[in-house]
Amino acid sequence: MFTAAVLGATGYAGIELVRLLNSHPEVEIKMLVSHSFVGKKISEVYPNFKGVLDLECEDLDVDKAAACDVVFTALPHGASKEVIPQLYNKGARIIDLSGDFRYDDADVYAKWYGEEHSSPEILKESVYGLCELHRDKIKNTRLVGNPGCYTTCSILGLAPLLANGIVKSDNIIVDAKSGVTGAGRSSALDYSFCECTENAKAYKIATHRHTSEIEQELSKLAGEEIMISFTPHLIPQKRGILSTMYANLKKDKTTEELIELYKEYYKDEYFVRVYDSGLPETNHVAGSNFVDIGLVVDTRLKRVVISSVIDNIGKGAAGQAVQNMNILLGLDEKTGLSGAGFYL
Amino acid sequence: MFTAAVLGATGYAGIELVRLLNSHPEVEIKMLVSHSFVGKKISEVYPNFKGVLDLECEDLDVDKAAACDVVFTALPHGASKEVIPQLYNKGARIIDLSGDFRYDDADVYAKWYGEEHSSPEILKESVYGLCELHRDKIKNTRLVGNPGCYTTCSILGLAPLLANGIVKSDNIIVDAKSGVTGAGRSSALDYSFCECTENAKAYKIATHRHTSEIEQELSKLAGEEIMISFTPHLIPQKRGILSTMYANLKKDKTTEELIELYKEYYKDEYFVRVYDSGLPETNHVAGSNFVDIGLVVDTRLKRVVISSVIDNIGKGAAGQAVQNMNILLGLDEKTGLSGAGFYL
Amino acid sequence: MFTAAVLGATGYAGIELVRLLNSHPEVEIKMLVSHSFVGKKISEVYPNFKGVLDLECEDLDVDKAAACDVVFTALPHGASKEVIPQLYNKGARIIDLSGDFRYDDADVYAKWYGEEHSSPEILKESVYGLCELHRDKIKNTRLVGNPGCYTTCSILGLAPLLANGIVKSDNIIVDAKSGVTGAGRSSALDYSFCECTENAKAYKIATHRHTSEIEQELSKLAGEEIMISFTPHLIPQKRGILSTMYANLKKDKTTEELIELYKEYYKDEYFVRVYDSGLPETNHVAGSNFVDIGLVVDTRLKRVVISSVIDNIGKGAAGQAVQNMNILLGLDEKTGLSGAGFYL
Amino acid sequence: MFTAAVLGATGYAGIELVRLLNSHPEVEIKMLVSHSFVGKKISEVYPNFKGVLDLECEDLDVDKAAACDVVFTALPHGASKEVIPQLYNKGARIIDLSGDFRYDDADVYAKWYGEEHSSPEILKESVYGLCELHRDKIKNTRLVGNPGCYTTCSILGLAPLLANGIVKSDNIIVDAKSGVTGAGRSSALDYSFCECTENAKAYKIATHRHTSEIEQELSKLAGEEIMISFTPHLIPQKRGILSTMYANLKKDKTTEELIELYKEYYKDEYFVRVYDSGLPETNHVAGSNFVDIGLVVDTRLKRVVISSVIDNIGKGAAGQAVQNMNILLGLDEKTGLSGAGFYL
Repeated sequence: MFTAAVLGATGYAGIELVRLLNSHPEVEIKMLVSHSFVGKKISEVYPNFKGVLDLECEDLDVDKAAACDVVFTALPHGASKEVIPQLYNKGARIIDLSGDFRYDDADVYAKWYGEEHSSPEILKESVYGLCELHRDKIKNTRLVGNPGCYTTCSILGLAPLLANGIVKSDNIIVDAKSGVTGAGRSSALDYSFCECTENAKAYKIATHRHTSEIEQELSKLAGEEIMISFTPHLIPQKRGILSTMYANLKKDKTTEELIELYKEYYKDEYFVRVYDSGLPETNHVAGSNFVDIGLVVDTRLKRVVISSVIDNIGKGAAGQAVQNMNILLGLDEKTGLSGAGFYL
Repeated sequence: MFTAAVLGATGYAGIELVRLLNSHPEVEIKMLVSHSFVGKKISEVYPNFKGVLDLECEDLDVDKAAACDVVFTALPHGASKEVIPQLYNKGARIIDLSGDFRYDDADVYAKWYGEEHSSPEILKESVYGLCELHRDKIKNTRLVGNPGCYTTCSILGLAPLLANGIVKSDNIIVDAKSGVTGAGRSSALDYSFCECTENAKAYKIATHRHTSEIEQELSKLAGEEIMISFTPHLIPQKRGILSTMYANLKKDKTTEELIELYKEYYKDEYFVRVYDSGLPETNHVAGSNFVDIGLVVDTRLKRVVISSVIDNIGKGAAGQAVQNMNILLGLDEKTGLSGAGFYL
Repeated sequence: MFTAAVLGATGYAGIELVRLLNSHPEVEIKMLVSHSFVGKKISEVYPNFKGVLDLECEDLDVDKAAACDVVFTALPHGASKEVIPQLYNKGARIIDLSGDFRYDDADVYAKWYGEEHSSPEILKESVYGLCELHRDKIKNTRLVGNPGCYTTCSILGLAPLLANGIVKSDNIIVDAKSGVTGAGRSSALDYSFCECTENAKAYKIATHRHTSEIEQELSKLAGEEIMISFTPHLIPQKRGILSTMYANLKKDKTTEELIELYKEYYKDEYFVRVYDSGLPETNHVAGSNFVDIGLVVDTRLKRVVISSVIDNIGKGAAGQAVQNMNILLGLDEKTGLSGAGFYL
Repeated sequence: MFTAAVLGATGYAGIELVRLLNSHPEVEIKMLVSHSFVGKKISEVYPNFKGVLDLECEDLDVDKAAACDVVFTALPHGASKEVIPQLYNKGARIIDLSGDFRYDDADVYAKWYGEEHSSPEILKESVYGLCELHRDKIKNTRLVGNPGCYTTCSILGLAPLLANGIVKSDNIIVDAKSGVTGAGRSSALDYSFCECTENAKAYKIATHRHTSEIEQELSKLAGEEIMISFTPHLIPQKRGILSTMYANLKKDKTTEELIELYKEYYKDEYFVRVYDSGLPETNHVAGSNFVDIGLVVDTRLKRVVISSVIDNIGKGAAGQAVQNMNILLGLDEKTGLSGAGFYL
């Protein structure tokens, strides 16, 4: 059995990680760190774990964490940047769910986060943990920058087009809708039940940080700089991201041709499901690590519209973190993740 | 007091009309037609009306309906096309909530509805009832084609840009999200609670009929043919449409400049509210006849992103129908519609 | 036109009051007090009011408030008890939405609120504002203790039985379910979207303060001391209270006989709707001032089960406050409240 | 590996069974029967299974089904009563999720279902599959009547009191709230999103069939005939049942004493979690096989109020069916069921 520590275990990404790890056949959770709940059992904070996992939350002990085979950091931005260098320097294998280690270029980070990166030398060692694209590099790193939820859904939905040079590089538009868990375990009024239910809104138009992650990866795939419009939306559900994406075709293509292209591109990927027809819905993937993709070519406009869905705290956070762990530890990538989602 | 008949009173658009008309100070509901509930009180079908309006639903009597000052038809497609010519020929003033009388050109109808228009001669007499754009023509018609929900939200969100030649005509994208009342009072499994809640999806990509309505109106505003990508989505709430729209600027403009342009364009419109800053949310307009609009210029991309919201059964159906009635009857356009929405 | 001030205008009960008063034909809102939003327009806090009511929120000026024809206080507990004596002593007519002025006996207040009442002499002057039961006294007071939401729903659901001596006084059980607006405009984690949606729970079993209000009123109706079990529950919706109540019959009665009794008891009450058959649902009353009641006699057990529903921020707070105002001001009790609820 | 057949695989209980069995380490699904979807892959009906389980649905072949180690029947009432005798006579081990084989006495069935039992001789062989109460009998039967959702939640919530003679037998009241999956995969208008969301209601007061199941089991536990009030409610969520139960104490007891009694009674039960303090919420058990119980003694009234929760399609249907299967097959009862629920 491998051992794992989860730092930030009582946030929503953290607790989904705990749920997945707890039923993972090759891993034992050794340590749950939660600044706010030191001394409380995880099952007191999340009663669904009562009798299932009654481990106590503790304060961070870097040595103890680093002694585990893998350390997950699901910490708020500020906390993360202090902790990770310490862990890294102790030799830990780290999967970080924050935005801090997702960039190839510290300047891009600085531009979108509004501050200099605090550990540019460690950033260089990190690998962007979008498993389907960077599996080989992930195997050989000790620090994985686990991708954002919007970004995972959007990049995988567009990758085959850009990798194959099918679409024009300008006018790529990503219109994404997220469930409320995407905001984390927040007591802000904006995320209260009465303000969220029966309500939908766009937010952070043209300024959301995930834009830069998507652009970084699409640019690498395309071999040229890609800039996109990215608009995130909040919709009244807990789990789920739905990205609707628009790109102009260089040459006429049919829907069938592009579906074939996607199926070929993802033919070895268990977690990416390309639809022969029809469109994916967020409840097809809720509670799972799958990415479901459908697409339609609008021949009138010589434009392709792609619709992809993930569970934002599954493949968009904790699920992909476990997938990264499986890669890091040399396990079958599907271990502990192969089941169907809830649907209901 | 003017008199009104509502045909199709027990559908969702119909019953919202009844709710609005029942509290309208200048109108009396004389007749509720519902094929499925003949002989039942409207308050038996919708118990919220118990003691408030206990009028019996009846079968259609064209003469009786035509004798009212205004007839609203909120009928299924098939029923509508038979009834309206009869009513029209009896001299009735009609506000039709179906898609049948929204087109300038019967060929466009035929193309998107997959069948010839059954009353092209009456279609010629009809006026597209988007009040803010066609108020003057509405005054002088007897047949208003009340606009679709997606279309109202999207056209008004884009109108100032096209009327002023601010954006390029290609690459206009409308990504719209709708609450489930948009599907009407349906018992289809797809609209059941367990299938809809915690779920979001795109549907009818590149083929939704509202595309043609939006294109018709934008083309008129622009003075050139406009073709758009229109993607409707279903999100888990009852009321509300949110359109997020993308268009490329011909020249550099700031967010502030475009907001100013919008405010000027809509300066006399009570029901259109342009945000100085921030973005609209569907609960800002739920239960009202308002259209709220926010926008952001993405200077990186020389692109404007507009976000507009309506209540799909308010301004997107019943509210606008009452607004059209007010115009037809020479009343103040705001009568019975001036209140704030529910928010909660 | 009468003038009104709303203290605590930006809470959920407050804003629903503002919504109702704004469309009330005989009242003008003169003053909105909100400690947290001084200097902001109400339409900046609740954008549904943009262009409809753009009055600025201000800090409390007791003289200015007391100069209005009626003052509504929808303040948190602490604030309320300081402000009301000042207003009362200036001669104001006050409708208080807190729990402070709902009791005949300061000792009962002390027992359930865990502290002595701060203004027992003013408490004596106040009238419990359950309009259907205390209309005559309300006319002659200057201080109305507007009832709680659970209490309004439960008392009116049981009143005919106790007033007519139909049921035994022990074993009365009130099991009540409330939407989340009942918790007010709260940013507590417990009321966040992700914690509330897809979730239901009982809370404060045997200790909820509304127990004492219900007992006070039922005891007066019965002419003997009544003690009840009252269990509140939180369910995942915004508006609505559903009380399911159980009482043992003294003598055999049929469902029909008791329905007849209820209809007779409430025959002059516009806002109480007794169902001939079937059971009420919260969406029958959402957005309205109605109380809907259904009942079934379980002849096996010689027990009656009553189900009553209200909108907790309508008849359970702001609606009843307006009804009380209508009584205080000598207006028709239905003024501004006669419409049907939203249903959708 | 044991083999299993699921009849009625495409209903909500059926598909949850498929989800659980698919990740069960000791069982292989050999056969999915669905009359409506013969020839379709289960993953076409429920796309969450795409790539996970792509087994085709087939029509019923009794011999093929009976050849499996266990057959689950999750069929509509009419279908069930024809199929089960055939399967039983072929020697199959059957776990039936309908109401048909839950009764000790065919007369009770006849009274509550309004028709004679069609296989009274087979009914005699069946065992009521409430695992915690009838484990020993379940081991030795070939036909388990898997309990209803309301009944599982309510019986387990009351069992310790009745088994220990703590409460009076009259005046036991069960007020239960259910999510909408309880109605099955239904396209009835009553279960449409727009009619269910933001809505709550009681239904079938004094007549719901589950009353008789609860009474049967409580009577056996108490050793005397118990008759209860049972009121089911529909609340706007997918999963979850919350039972709030009221019973009068024979002698004074404290909350702590009764909690101790419950903990002792359930000390060997993994799936029953008694709360030391606080009350259970449906999201503590959603997606799991747990029953969570909290209670409070109201000393004013000498009454205990118990609150218990389950996932209605988990422990209330598919989860308990798997638990029964584990017992039948001699496996550890927790196999495939030991994980925590979703919470989010």
